Amino acid sequence: MIDVPVNLGARSYRILVGAGALAMVGAELARLKVGRRVALVSDAAILALHGAAVTRSLAAASFDVTTVLLPEGERAKTLEVAASTWERFLDAGLDRSSTVVALGGGAVGDLAGFAAATYMRGIGVVQAPTTLLAQVDASIGGKTAIDHARAKNLIGAFHQPRLVLSDTSTLLTLPEREYRSGLAEVIKHGIVLDAAYFEDVERGVGALLEREPAALERIVAGSCRLKASVVERDEQESELRHVLNYGHTIGHAIEAVTGYRRFAHGEAVSLGIAAEAGIAERLGLAKPGVRARQVRLLEAVGLPVRGAGEAPSLVVEALSRDKKARDGRVPFVLAPEIGAFRLVFDVPTATILDALADLA
Amino acid sequence: MIDVPVNLGARSYRILVGAGALAMVGAELARLKVGRRVALVSDAAILALHGAAVTRSLAAASFDVTTVLLPEGERAKTLEVAASTWERFLDAGLDRSSTVVALGGGAVGDLAGFAAATYMRGIGVVQAPTTLLAQVDASIGGKTAIDHARAKNLIGAFHQPRLVLSDTSTLLTLPEREYRSGLAEVIKHGIVLDAAYFEDVERGVGALLEREPAALERIVAGSCRLKASVVERDEQESELRHVLNYGHTIGHAIEAVTGYRRFAHGEAVSLGIAAEAGIAERLGLAKPGVRARQVRLLEAVGLPVRGAGEAPSLVVEALSRDKKARDGRVPFVLAPEIGAFRLVFDVPTATILDALADLA
Repeated sequence: MIDVPVNLGARSYRILVGAGALAMVGAELARLKVGRRVALVSDAAILALHGAAVTRSLAAASFDVTTVLLPEGERAKTLEVAASTWERFLDAGLDRSSTVVALGGGAVGDLAGFAAATYMRGIGVVQAPTTLLAQVDASIGGKTAIDHARAKNLIGAFHQPRLVLSDTSTLLTLPEREYRSGLAEVIKHGIVLDAAYFEDVERGVGALLEREPAALERIVAGSCRLKASVVERDEQESELRHVLNYGHTIGHAIEAVTGYRRFAHGEAVSLGIAAEAGIAERLGLAKPGVRARQVRLLEAVGLPVRGAGEAPSLVVEALSRDKKARDGRVPFVLAPEIGAFRLVFDVPTATILDALADLA
Repeated sequence: MIDVPVNLGARSYRILVGAGALAMVGAELARLKVGRRVALVSDAAILALHGAAVTRSLAAASFDVTTVLLPEGERAKTLEVAASTWERFLDAGLDRSSTVVALGGGAVGDLAGFAAATYMRGIGVVQAPTTLLAQVDASIGGKTAIDHARAKNLIGAFHQPRLVLSDTSTLLTLPEREYRSGLAEVIKHGIVLDAAYFEDVERGVGALLEREPAALERIVAGSCRLKASVVERDEQESELRHVLNYGHTIGHAIEAVTGYRRFAHGEAVSLGIAAEAGIAERLGLAKPGVRARQVRLLEAVGLPVRGAGEAPSLVVEALSRDKKARDGRVPFVLAPEIGAFRLVFDVPTATILDALADLA
């Protein structure tokens, strides 16, 4: 088990990474001296796979557990589901000393985190992510949200978890496409934050694709450390934390234009990285070969870097609705070389369109 | 104009107290270097009285203002109104650099604050309270909330304002009953936090009831300072901040039992103070005469200390649903003397019932 601390003063917490982390939830919560009531929030498919490990551990530590079942996937992230979740918390008698355990992928973590952030003005939440995407990214840093009919993640709150349990054995049950999608965030961390980590991923592609336990633990913990270091320096995404949006500015726009159906999130991020690497090259910001190296690793893990070339003008239009826009200007995170980044405002639209054309 | 700082590190802000504070909103927001889009959230009656001062000031500083109209009073604090407010923010193109100005009483501040806290995971809010209750209490400290059918203020967030503008000239337009209701919080601050302030209020009852401008400014600023000192030491109500709930534990229960219709909030708090002072006396915690002095001042400003004696068992039952309960135990803030407090768990039900009988 690897223990990654997130240092945020009074809101500090630990990320425990490794096979069997889920079975530690009862003992770890007892150490935090929280109240005895716990709501386990998850969906039916995840509960069937991993629910027993969590409920057994909580029961052994004498917690009172109520299970709250969510619809699967993004359908969990609505105001209606949030309202019924609050209702269930009230039925279960949750008070400010109670804890929500979010067991699942990013959607479960987002909804359960938002419900916990707003119930009685905030109760504790434990993130127990079961997808690679959620383990290396969504579960860390306190971002929670629900969707609005007109914009994903529009309504939300920053609400740091009390604890993150990233059980890497849950990754063995992921469908191949979902697993590879999570690797896009792993690669993103390397590109903008740490050249040595990027090289480790390059060297470990085979072991990663085989999901070898030691490789999973090392790579997940490495991403957690990188993300934690960013969150520690910019908890509420005022400046530095934008770095984590590398590949996401174009990626989100591609997802919006394709109705969030055609590409998995990580696939859209992979396309976004390919496009944003192209922007950096066209602006003369990136050295020659930097884009090629990123694209090579994305392709090596089976992520798309082409096949989204249509309607670049729609993608550009979707960019204007980006949550990171400030009075209409969208900042781009660009990588001048592997392991470095720069925040660039006012990228010319023509440059964006050219870079999108490479995705055709 | 009196300037009261609230020191909360990166979340610090100023409270400007005095006649004409509303007209400073444009210049003050410009100093904060926020984006140019502003949503002015208020209700029709308040806008008619005070809207022009705010919009003129914002326009003079070149802000783009969209007005969002709420239903009057507690009817503003629903999930439906929050959803339509988010919708209006989106229509107006608000982004993370934009600001919400909450102009009105506690309900407007709660709803607008909650909408701002959750839109794009939190945008800036300026609290511009126009009732005495909101100026001395609700606008400071970042508590925001909406109601749930089964519990008031159940859903909410801590979200500190960027600035508070307490224009004491707005108090001249308040109906008498609403104005006197606000004095309950003023008296509460004195009882548990500051004997000298309590004496100042005792001596100034005549000027306060006449709403003399200098008295209003001094008393409002004094309460702001006291509340700020508590919020600075306990931002998220983990322990010390409970002191501000003096009179509110019983007061909230009386409001719940009477369907939030019979008593104004301050009237229920006044009854709560009378009852909780009785509890302190019965527990041998308060010196003789401490309750009588509190009751005397409440009566001097025209607040009720009797007339809520029915169904004490219902009041006790309502206590068990208090948001401050921890695994079923409700903490009481009690005043051993004027200017001091103690947090007491496990007050015997018989003692509570006896103290409630005094309200008959």
